[in-house]
Amino acid sequence: MKLSFLKTDLLNGINIVLKAVPSKTTMTILECILIDATSGEIKLMANDMELAIETKVKGEILEAGRIAIDAKIFSEIVRKLPDSEVLIEEYGNETIRISCEKANFQIVGKRGDDFAFMPQIEREDYICLSQFTLKETIRQTIFSIAANENNKLMTGELFEISGNSLRVVSMDGHRISIRHVELKDYYEEKKVVVPGKTLMEISRILTGDQDSDVYIFFGKNYILFEFDDTLVLSRLIEGKYFQVDQMISNNYETKITVNKREFLDSIERSTLLIRESDKKPIILNVKDETMELSLNSFLGSMREEISIEKGGKDLMIGFNPRFLIDALRVIDDEEIDVYMINSKAPCFIRDENQSYIYLILPVNFSTPR
Amino acid sequence: MKLSFLKTDLLNGINIVLKAVPSKTTMTILECILIDATSGEIKLMANDMELAIETKVKGEILEAGRIAIDAKIFSEIVRKLPDSEVLIEEYGNETIRISCEKANFQIVGKRGDDFAFMPQIEREDYICLSQFTLKETIRQTIFSIAANENNKLMTGELFEISGNSLRVVSMDGHRISIRHVELKDYYEEKKVVVPGKTLMEISRILTGDQDSDVYIFFGKNYILFEFDDTLVLSRLIEGKYFQVDQMISNNYETKITVNKREFLDSIERSTLLIRESDKKPIILNVKDETMELSLNSFLGSMREEISIEKGGKDLMIGFNPRFLIDALRVIDDEEIDVYMINSKAPCFIRDENQSYIYLILPVNFSTPR
Repeated sequence: MKLSFLKTDLLNGINIVLKAVPSKTTMTILECILIDATSGEIKLMANDMELAIETKVKGEILEAGRIAIDAKIFSEIVRKLPDSEVLIEEYGNETIRISCEKANFQIVGKRGDDFAFMPQIEREDYICLSQFTLKETIRQTIFSIAANENNKLMTGELFEISGNSLRVVSMDGHRISIRHVELKDYYEEKKVVVPGKTLMEISRILTGDQDSDVYIFFGKNYILFEFDDTLVLSRLIEGKYFQVDQMISNNYETKITVNKREFLDSIERSTLLIRESDKKPIILNVKDETMELSLNSFLGSMREEISIEKGGKDLMIGFNPRFLIDALRVIDDEEIDVYMINSKAPCFIRDENQSYIYLILPVNFSTPR
Repeated sequence: MKLSFLKTDLLNGINIVLKAVPSKTTMTILECILIDATSGEIKLMANDMELAIETKVKGEILEAGRIAIDAKIFSEIVRKLPDSEVLIEEYGNETIRISCEKANFQIVGKRGDDFAFMPQIEREDYICLSQFTLKETIRQTIFSIAANENNKLMTGELFEISGNSLRVVSMDGHRISIRHVELKDYYEEKKVVVPGKTLMEISRILTGDQDSDVYIFFGKNYILFEFDDTLVLSRLIEGKYFQVDQMISNNYETKITVNKREFLDSIERSTLLIRESDKKPIILNVKDETMELSLNSFLGSMREEISIEKGGKDLMIGFNPRFLIDALRVIDDEEIDVYMINSKAPCFIRDENQSYIYLILPVNFSTPR
């Protein structure tokens, strides 16, 4: 095998597939990136058995072949090469030479045939949306997946397609995040749970371009994302996701409209008084035209007042400030509406046409001084 | 006590004195920043008993007084406040209110009188140089102080003044860094060893301005740096520093002139093949017009050739690549001269008028394939 690349093209490809290289594994072949130049194109691949990524790289095939190279050393070497033409040659014995101007490295690779290739999936059932929309939707929901694996389904996100609507849902037992996206076409009904890790890695690879599309193909146990020159294949999480609609209600006793920036800044400041292990709630005291925010911890206390518009009853309610911050950070509206029933029932942050719904459970609090 | 500041002024002052707040200590008063507004000016102070910093902050004294506040929580709160006027008030019981626009924090402080104040030193014996020169000189030498305390003197830097010349020296047993600085005035002879930690913290505070001066005062066991509105006082390291002049020689058998950037880039690439615990040398093979650099490790091998001008004998010599990198990074010359005697004797990187001298010991190596 003998290939020639521009350093930037090669490095760009490496950075994409690196997302599927596991940091710890007992199978050393999984720590490798496969360079495959057997089909007239140059492809890089990596596969951690849950997630597999393949991307095409511009370059010249001087001699066809394929070889696997340790991802860490390969990416570090290429990153440090001069910004010029890079030559990758394989001799016998899986010895690989990487050269660029005067730089000259020799490392030992692994047989390409030992690599764990991607399973093939049928490309029949699919949807299409812009890179921008997918990247944004992931960002706006990913924070409320569950971190631990006690409930496997909660570590993923529900992708639910019905007609021209895509609904993405995540929940962790304390909160639910829902985003509705209108698609350009109409599709068959589908419901799958995509691993959160897959979505995080994809959103790092997506450029977020408005004019560039992502095709998402649905297989029996797999989902395939295709965009630019890249394929990302992931296992799905098996099982039936929670009945989200039963958890959502449009009733309320108190509705407030508040400037998002002011609300968020104030909550963020309150967290200065919280040390990691500490679980102090922020208490919202909703009155006619103002809301008082207060927090007491062993470090001190804070108290702020912000202007609101209120409909319905006065209310005092406590929240984990982190959960409010997570939701507010991903809402782009300048003014937001918060709907509440009482101090024990979940609050809903949602816009009028429900393009987003953030449900957050309140926490108990002792009445402040 | 009641004081009013602009947030940026206060934060700037806090960031300066924070450098003298110890991260771990059993004396909680040392974790505090003292706000002292008893003398018609507002001063912030911190003191870890080795290093003490005092800085003046612009602000209005509405009521004189002084109080100590936990540095961590104080700095975090001020950092998060809106960019506006900050009011700090002390009530009885060391309760402190920090308010800014609608934000309102209450925390408990400590009695200002319990604070460990700076010792006074006589301001007779001093030198003066620009902030730029001091900051640069520290950067160009600090990397070769010893990290561990086995030899206390090696954890500091020698500051040696003679006439209008300041010589700064650091060494760690494998290498020596020397910088000569010409001062604007003539001073009495002085020789002190300044702790490396002090110099690192000072260089972070110095703006590096060409037109702004630093006065350095020499006391019996202390050194005091005065610049802008800030005083930094540090203990000196006691003892007699090493006889540097005996370690330096102007003899050589081989002299090379090489482009610094090319040399540095090549050595940096070689370190890609080295994992932390590994101690592989880079081998320089000096011939008539070229120098070959090579490194072999269990990860692979690299070999590069760069153009040089050579005087004297051919030579093959091995170095810890890290030591070459550290020295080359702080030399601003485009072309550098390296002087060598044989593969067992130290090499010297120095300019013609010896404004800098970097001595590096070679390491043994097995002859490469």
